[in-house]
Amino acid sequence: MTAQLNIGEVVETVRGVVGVADSVALHEPEFTGNEKKYLNDCIDSTFVSSVGGFVDRFEAMLCKHTGSGHAVACVNGTAALQIALQLAGVGANDEVIVPALTFVATANSVSFLGAVPHFVDSESRTLGLDAKALAERLDAVGEQGSNGVRNVQTGRRIAAIVPVHAFGHPADLAGLMEVAEAWNIPVVEDATESLGTLYRNRHTGTFGLLSALSFNGNKIITTGGGGAILTSDHELARRAKHITTTAKLPHRWAFDHDEIGYNFRLPNLNAALGCAQLEQLDDFVKRKRRLAGRYRAAFSHVPGIKVFAEPEGARSNYWLNALLLDESEADRRDELLGALNDAGVMSRPAWTLLHELSMYRECPRGFLGVAEGLARRIVNVPSSARLGHA
Amino acid sequence: MTAQLNIGEVVETVRGVVGVADSVALHEPEFTGNEKKYLNDCIDSTFVSSVGGFVDRFEAMLCKHTGSGHAVACVNGTAALQIALQLAGVGANDEVIVPALTFVATANSVSFLGAVPHFVDSESRTLGLDAKALAERLDAVGEQGSNGVRNVQTGRRIAAIVPVHAFGHPADLAGLMEVAEAWNIPVVEDATESLGTLYRNRHTGTFGLLSALSFNGNKIITTGGGGAILTSDHELARRAKHITTTAKLPHRWAFDHDEIGYNFRLPNLNAALGCAQLEQLDDFVKRKRRLAGRYRAAFSHVPGIKVFAEPEGARSNYWLNALLLDESEADRRDELLGALNDAGVMSRPAWTLLHELSMYRECPRGFLGVAEGLARRIVNVPSSARLGHA
Repeated sequence: MTAQLNIGEVVETVRGVVGVADSVALHEPEFTGNEKKYLNDCIDSTFVSSVGGFVDRFEAMLCKHTGSGHAVACVNGTAALQIALQLAGVGANDEVIVPALTFVATANSVSFLGAVPHFVDSESRTLGLDAKALAERLDAVGEQGSNGVRNVQTGRRIAAIVPVHAFGHPADLAGLMEVAEAWNIPVVEDATESLGTLYRNRHTGTFGLLSALSFNGNKIITTGGGGAILTSDHELARRAKHITTTAKLPHRWAFDHDEIGYNFRLPNLNAALGCAQLEQLDDFVKRKRRLAGRYRAAFSHVPGIKVFAEPEGARSNYWLNALLLDESEADRRDELLGALNDAGVMSRPAWTLLHELSMYRECPRGFLGVAEGLARRIVNVPSSARLGHA
Repeated sequence: MTAQLNIGEVVETVRGVVGVADSVALHEPEFTGNEKKYLNDCIDSTFVSSVGGFVDRFEAMLCKHTGSGHAVACVNGTAALQIALQLAGVGANDEVIVPALTFVATANSVSFLGAVPHFVDSESRTLGLDAKALAERLDAVGEQGSNGVRNVQTGRRIAAIVPVHAFGHPADLAGLMEVAEAWNIPVVEDATESLGTLYRNRHTGTFGLLSALSFNGNKIITTGGGGAILTSDHELARRAKHITTTAKLPHRWAFDHDEIGYNFRLPNLNAALGCAQLEQLDDFVKRKRRLAGRYRAAFSHVPGIKVFAEPEGARSNYWLNALLLDESEADRRDELLGALNDAGVMSRPAWTLLHELSMYRECPRGFLGVAEGLARRIVNVPSSARLGHA
């Protein structure tokens, strides 16, 4: 007989890891580096907006940290993903394969292009898209044609595949890239949660044709709001910069634009904050990994629940630590969430699965049983870098 | 016989107004208030992103300054206009009437919704949409139907009218509102250039159903990048906040979203800058109006050119001062632009008219002769508030 989950024990165990302060946030940023200095420098320069040295510096630092050939800073991660998809060739009435277990912005970015998300299952090992489920789904509905892969059930083109590195854990990039290459469908990585995460010693976001990062306030580093597109393709990077800056043609004075462009550039003010934050990324990763280790150790003997650990071959940033209830305890998730939050330990479930949201209910999808099982069992617990102090 | 334009005299006259420093920007921001203090406060609070007190404060200050019932801060003016149009009912395959003489973002916001810009002429008196041309165009192509006004030539619905307050001068709001009301088409004001501008003692942006402001780096106040939606309709304001913040439903922990929402909220960091800037708006307007007065006086006897003055009933913010070449001198515009920029006086022409850009060439349009005449003759000259010192 399996020992039963004891809610009080779980709350106490989390408390033991994060400390006994009154209230603990799920994830809060830390500004103990050059944040104020760079912001003040930015104000002194008067270049707070679309032009200024911090944007260039931030982009160069992102390249250095990720090993990406190019980085194009954007106003946020959603905008970055939208443009990355557009540059990968996604257009109106195409389909894009995404997991159901992800933040809603993954699917919204697809919708903004007039395209339709197509949901494929996740795997328990990575919390990301399942390469085997992807291959099976493509075998079931895909047909190679002159214009790429067609979904024979809907008649639409399947224009891209978007692995999401959920909570900072890398998806099975090797497996997914293999399927994508076999079908010749471009991969755009949603790396909005995985800055600092390596897969086989290479940074997530550098495997697909393009990828998107996010620097929202709840991420491992923040620019207030911000994101970036990564790519190693010089021409795609040039295009990304062009269409995120209103597609204006360089000229001494004329205002000519050669296509419909976006106002998606990151302001220099936000990039200034980003430079200061990025200087501390390695330290944040180190402390977040230490915190994850403490959660794992503390929960190793707690019955009915375990801590999700990075998959093989990964070095995760552990953006958000995830507790995983045993299947038999899944119906006690909300009871646990209530108890944790009542105790001042901010906690949350995984996102509501995207195919369960009203606007995505009618989208094409394969079997999603694994994602459904995971969503019922995940509880994210406080994960700020400061909680991983030495 | 008319006296001829003397390029050297124009350059010297501008130099006389702006001072003899080496190089003068077209428009630069000024950070001599609480900018650093509020940014540092924001960092100390750790709330730099989507949650934080500066956003609420900034929105309240915008309401006070404009007299609008509600203000919803956004990531930039383009996003604000896009959402304002969506909330006014604009959808895919609708048409939206806009002037051709405006920044490209006016039309791009329409395009982002899958709608099509429909260009109507401007008037020399205001540089904005011409109420008479609008009425004539609607008489020529409009037809009332059960679903609103239909363009009989294209079959599409004409879903909104967007007056733009070009360079900070109010369009003929009385005339335009009268035509719009007669046809029952909602008006969405593009007030991105006119913060601080009154029309008949009421702030621009409070006449239409909704309007958009911008706080880009080149505007009268800046948040780095930012914008806002104004409306006096409580329900529209609630909807604006909802769909600019990913349409998330309030819940203690669950991530449910009830429609396709945007990540268009203004970060708290940028709102902090905005609060400091808005405290100085009245002073900026005063100095910019003083500078405009100096331009007018200095050019009163220069042949071949004049300074555009606010139309009757307006109190303009004179965002960008505009020189207007006589019709007979229009072909010397680029010569003048070259001479001014060579002399270190940053100057620019009006925007390339939108119907002349490749992506908008095929859009429906009326006669645009006045806009074409104005675009050939406008030269914007340095207009920073600091140039209007006492």
